[in-house]
Amino acid sequence: MGELAAIEALAARLGRPPPGELWLGDDAAVVEAPAGPLLMAADTVVAGVHFDLRWSAPADVGWKAMAVNISDLAAMGARPHRALVSVAGPAGTDIPGLYDGLLEAAAEYGCPIVGGDLTSAPALVLTVAVTGSMPPGRPPVTRAGAAPGDVVWLTGPVGSSAAGLAALVRGEADSPLAGCHRRPRARLEEGTAARTAGATAMIDLSDGTAIDLWRLGLASGVEVELDRMPVAQGASPEEAMGGGEDYELAFTAPSAASEGVQDAFAAAGCRPPVAVGRCTAGEPGRVRLGGADVGVRGWEHRF
Amino acid sequence: MGELAAIEALAARLGRPPPGELWLGDDAAVVEAPAGPLLMAADTVVAGVHFDLRWSAPADVGWKAMAVNISDLAAMGARPHRALVSVAGPAGTDIPGLYDGLLEAAAEYGCPIVGGDLTSAPALVLTVAVTGSMPPGRPPVTRAGAAPGDVVWLTGPVGSSAAGLAALVRGEADSPLAGCHRRPRARLEEGTAARTAGATAMIDLSDGTAIDLWRLGLASGVEVELDRMPVAQGASPEEAMGGGEDYELAFTAPSAASEGVQDAFAAAGCRPPVAVGRCTAGEPGRVRLGGADVGVRGWEHRF
Repeated sequence: MGELAAIEALAARLGRPPPGELWLGDDAAVVEAPAGPLLMAADTVVAGVHFDLRWSAPADVGWKAMAVNISDLAAMGARPHRALVSVAGPAGTDIPGLYDGLLEAAAEYGCPIVGGDLTSAPALVLTVAVTGSMPPGRPPVTRAGAAPGDVVWLTGPVGSSAAGLAALVRGEADSPLAGCHRRPRARLEEGTAARTAGATAMIDLSDGTAIDLWRLGLASGVEVELDRMPVAQGASPEEAMGGGEDYELAFTAPSAASEGVQDAFAAAGCRPPVAVGRCTAGEPGRVRLGGADVGVRGWEHRF
Repeated sequence: MGELAAIEALAARLGRPPPGELWLGDDAAVVEAPAGPLLMAADTVVAGVHFDLRWSAPADVGWKAMAVNISDLAAMGARPHRALVSVAGPAGTDIPGLYDGLLEAAAEYGCPIVGGDLTSAPALVLTVAVTGSMPPGRPPVTRAGAAPGDVVWLTGPVGSSAAGLAALVRGEADSPLAGCHRRPRARLEEGTAARTAGATAMIDLSDGTAIDLWRLGLASGVEVELDRMPVAQGASPEEAMGGGEDYELAFTAPSAASEGVQDAFAAAGCRPPVAVGRCTAGEPGRVRLGGADVGVRGWEHRF
């Protein structure tokens, strides 16, 4: 398929812009700016690095590319606004298949795709850039606001994505964990509930629980003392700490806010968050589980 | 270099955000939303497709990736606001070199880089996403507003990028045209001047003069009758019509506005634009030069 035909087919699938907006098909999209601050994030997924088309269908890849960006907004307590999608891929790339998943996630999280780019490349590289908005109330939740004494919360057990990938590699395509790897969920309502309840710092667990808690601790200048780590059913403790791609949120909140945190999650219809430890005035960035240093475990790209 | 060290080094180079903004280093950037509509565009450049590291230094590639996005905003009459940069590349990718050019263009066009992504990939793929703002006054200039009788203008002669690439391939690294290929300029002030003067439609000449005029004509429902095509010194007529990557702007304006167009360009300190023809009620999208159909010539990616 040629680029022009592909763009025409896509434009028809994006839906009709609201009055005053102009989406795909011009030099740039024109959209309504959100009230309050504008959030911006971009994440790239690459065949052979972030996904493998042996284990994931093109629609799964599209879903994941969108969901990981929504997760970045969720981790600030923000709401999705609009998305740009850039697909670079070799001849034979299943663009409609990718868009099946991109559009499913865009609809699920309320983040219309308004433009982007389509280009040939030797490898499939999918970049989504999103804008977000911040409803009135508290400021965005950064990684840097945790204080000693704050409770550390997770929105759910971790390790299921890594365990799902391991199952797929073993040939267990029907494993219930496979879906966790193929279609991670962005914890959007959870991020909003955490912000509403007074979260002091937040991060999404993308590269690995240990490395991402290290990032939060380092940014906030606190040590993270974990009493427990909720391991997803079928996952190993190692997958839980270093597997990555769970996209659960980790956040901190003053201990006086603990009841408010639980209430906010219940009011939002979210699964109850799990208190896993607390922040201390120890070594900034150090993460300990049951007193033992867990080190920086997770995924780091190398150049 | 590892991802964490690379991100830390980059954050120091992006400059200090204004009060209330948060740039690289958290899950998402937080910036001030522009007044009025928000413009959004993304463009990807790929090694071996859009550039060749034999002919372009990493800093040239970074410049180009930013400039082509600014060009998309210019073609709406918009102003740059903020940028996200996603670099996917193999081991040994010269990230600081790419950022030399990205930051030069960001400074030149006033579009701070506020975040993005760094990831490993089998091929170098650079995606820039930009937001833009629209100063008060006329609406964004789309491709769709040209009417029969409007004059067609170009902001300058075309073909120099293709001629520059041809010179580089012949080994003429010192050719004055080489710079046109390596470091295309975004016609930002020209785009604003055209909008101010009442341009009815506009597009940037990225894929080729003929294909991009076809796009404008098709979107507007007009035929484009060219009397002349200003060919850059050292370029061939074929390079001018089909070479692409010139990033000059083509725009249309009512003939009564011609003096105003020239005045607005002079007031902005821009090179005088060139009137090259007019729109007619002929076959929508057809482009003729001196009466002969030029066809759709230019670059189309294939999947």
